[in-house]
Amino acid sequence: MPVLVSQADDFPGWYQDVIAKAELAESGPVRGTMVIRPWAYAIWELVQAEIDRRIKAAGAENVYFPLLIPEGHLRREAEHIEGFSPELAVVTHAGGRELGEAAVIRPTSETVFGEYLARWIQSYRDLPLCLNQWANVVRWELRPRLFLRTSEFLWQEGHTAHATEADAAAYARRIHADVYGSVLRDVLAIPVIAGVKTETERFAGATTTLTCEGMMRDGKALQLATSHELGQNFARAFEIAYTDEQGTSQLCWTTSWGSSTRLIGGLIMAHGDDAGLRLPPGVAPVQVLIVLVKDDPQVREVAGRLERELAEAGLRVRTDRRTDLGLGRRLTDWELKGVPVRLEIGPRDLAEGTVSLARRDNKSREQVKVDGAVAAAAEALRSAHDALLGEANAQLRTRMVEVSDIAAAIEAARTGFARIPWAACGPEGEQELGRAGVSVRCLLTPEGSVPADAAQGDLEAVVARAY
Amino acid sequence: MPVLVSQADDFPGWYQDVIAKAELAESGPVRGTMVIRPWAYAIWELVQAEIDRRIKAAGAENVYFPLLIPEGHLRREAEHIEGFSPELAVVTHAGGRELGEAAVIRPTSETVFGEYLARWIQSYRDLPLCLNQWANVVRWELRPRLFLRTSEFLWQEGHTAHATEADAAAYARRIHADVYGSVLRDVLAIPVIAGVKTETERFAGATTTLTCEGMMRDGKALQLATSHELGQNFARAFEIAYTDEQGTSQLCWTTSWGSSTRLIGGLIMAHGDDAGLRLPPGVAPVQVLIVLVKDDPQVREVAGRLERELAEAGLRVRTDRRTDLGLGRRLTDWELKGVPVRLEIGPRDLAEGTVSLARRDNKSREQVKVDGAVAAAAEALRSAHDALLGEANAQLRTRMVEVSDIAAAIEAARTGFARIPWAACGPEGEQELGRAGVSVRCLLTPEGSVPADAAQGDLEAVVARAY
Repeated sequence: MPVLVSQADDFPGWYQDVIAKAELAESGPVRGTMVIRPWAYAIWELVQAEIDRRIKAAGAENVYFPLLIPEGHLRREAEHIEGFSPELAVVTHAGGRELGEAAVIRPTSETVFGEYLARWIQSYRDLPLCLNQWANVVRWELRPRLFLRTSEFLWQEGHTAHATEADAAAYARRIHADVYGSVLRDVLAIPVIAGVKTETERFAGATTTLTCEGMMRDGKALQLATSHELGQNFARAFEIAYTDEQGTSQLCWTTSWGSSTRLIGGLIMAHGDDAGLRLPPGVAPVQVLIVLVKDDPQVREVAGRLERELAEAGLRVRTDRRTDLGLGRRLTDWELKGVPVRLEIGPRDLAEGTVSLARRDNKSREQVKVDGAVAAAAEALRSAHDALLGEANAQLRTRMVEVSDIAAAIEAARTGFARIPWAACGPEGEQELGRAGVSVRCLLTPEGSVPADAAQGDLEAVVARAY
Repeated sequence: MPVLVSQADDFPGWYQDVIAKAELAESGPVRGTMVIRPWAYAIWELVQAEIDRRIKAAGAENVYFPLLIPEGHLRREAEHIEGFSPELAVVTHAGGRELGEAAVIRPTSETVFGEYLARWIQSYRDLPLCLNQWANVVRWELRPRLFLRTSEFLWQEGHTAHATEADAAAYARRIHADVYGSVLRDVLAIPVIAGVKTETERFAGATTTLTCEGMMRDGKALQLATSHELGQNFARAFEIAYTDEQGTSQLCWTTSWGSSTRLIGGLIMAHGDDAGLRLPPGVAPVQVLIVLVKDDPQVREVAGRLERELAEAGLRVRTDRRTDLGLGRRLTDWELKGVPVRLEIGPRDLAEGTVSLARRDNKSREQVKVDGAVAAAAEALRSAHDALLGEANAQLRTRMVEVSDIAAAIEAARTGFARIPWAACGPEGEQELGRAGVSVRCLLTPEGSVPADAAQGDLEAVVARAY
């Protein structure tokens, strides 16, 4: 009997099934919320560390702003609040009484960052001011789906203020490429389509929204991270101004950018197969699993030695010593959890001086010398990352077709992405796509790079069904 | 003009002043909430990393439970809800409509962990189950004080389930000593009084509460971290049971334990002086600050070289190149922020082959050879930690007096801690102390160690005024 619903039969069913059986997450007691279990949380910690390191390298500093925002504050940026109001959770009572002014749980922290940026920025010397926070946010979801759309999710949100439009744009693009693009490709092994959103799809209040779009294994798109150039919209609403070198007061140019636990959903759907997760080594809580096939003194001794050596080599290693359980059941479980490399140690192989090295990504298996097992495991991890990225790239190439009209785009979006000249689509074509359940994921230059903005001539639209 | 209100004149005023001037935190827009600024947040990240590493070493795994808890869930453990109800923040509206059942923002997550532990634990093989989460919680505060009592704060909360009472007790004590005790002493340089709470001060629902109490520089106590043995109270309320090896269903024994951003308040008040913070090197975002006294090619060259070498030595280093600002103002600012060691580089010293090494903890200053500056800085950091811990220990010894009656305890608590036989105090004495604004911080054995429980005979009480 197969372990999971098959992807080909029912991709959404497979997704739910793998989340339950790999013990990644469960629904919380309040509708739409999520309990993140140890395996998925460990993945999230690794994703966080990779993102955080790059954010700090880009010169931003971490801060923490409050969960609760006075309801009135959200009204200062009209376009912004309009984008969020149906999703807000409102605290009306606290400390045993009704509050004078209700407070909303942050759906994002633009407005409260705006208020304090205005206070902290005085002169051109204070710019750029680049801040980031790791936090939970709440946006009420009517049709929740674990990791992809939950009423509460974990994310980082960066908020920066700059002296010039060019500096703001350059910073948003740096985050887009050097943080999100890099983590997605180099750590999560997900090839990224990086472009700008159309006016319809753009973040409320932004002048340009940069997006990283990924293709899932069912050919649908998932928006993985976005970076917004906010122009002077927020600066005007919150009076974020600085005195320039000539002593004149100037409005700042601001940006914001975010990525969330949705990345875990992307990771599951970009690489998982009918046996479970396939984790890229960079975010695998266990990179090399040592499996004791049988309880035997020599097996224990070799396992202990390899565990030590793998840890000394800087790898995340764990040993499965549960020899009282059937080997098949144990291997099935670790395949579900997506551990990239296993070293299976049994007395028969040891008699020949070897252990069995199994790779999760391509299910290959080879005998390696005990003395060479650490080097072989490290090499297998490098290959596994490249193989996952290569496989995802190959799918993207195969399932992205060039079309020249809306009907062909809708047809192509049944199985993958379509690329269509924006001149042949435009806002009207976008509406027509929308009625067929298809959306413009982003706009690219003819060379496939990120345009300066959505108004540039000659752009191409990438369209797909999306999560 | 002094930089800060002096501690001797007005300790609470000094505390507020240093938080503002060292740019640690500000009040948030909703009353009682807090904005944590980059310097304090960087300290918190270092504190978190130290705690997290020890929690994982103790075998607990990180998870994330939802922010919102259905109001009804809290009623399952009557004693527990009673302890929290006046502090709850309640969400009544979400997604544009009134909720069928209101949700509270977690004041702690005991109840929701309880519900899922019950689901995840089936057999003795699943035990112990040791989980931890890093999260924000909300407890409405009528008299907020930054870091010490805020309506929202950041913390970690561990929740574990065990097969036996002895195993649960041993685990709570391991966390108490090896996580909290170790981080406080070895990282934060705060000597800890480790004991158990009296029945009055104990956590609602706990059978024993272990506490780490610290003495602040005004002689008042601050509770820094607590660990609770919950007996079978929560297990009974949430039906957390397992099947033992004989096939019989048994209730589990649970624990919970937490520490929060309050630790930053403790850090400020345990070590700060009239010039600002004094950070123990283990949690200093910048351990060694290089200061360019004057802009000069040779100064820049030496500064660049030392910065590289210090970073290579694994130290957190930053360079202050703002030679257009007065040196005095810059040094005052870095003293406020508590950077433990400075290397000040100027052309006059360089002509003699030296730089000036200044220590924040004791304000000492010495000339060191450029070639030996990295080693001297590393040595100064080690000494600074020991000196801060030594100074705090000396204060604790001086300001802790042995008394034999309540009146003397109240008198002693005007300037420090008093130790009184519990037999000479008891619950009635505790009430009398309470009327004088003094509380029993914890109970110790006559040898000063942690008692098995609060009911043990022959105990001594440590009493003090407390934050």
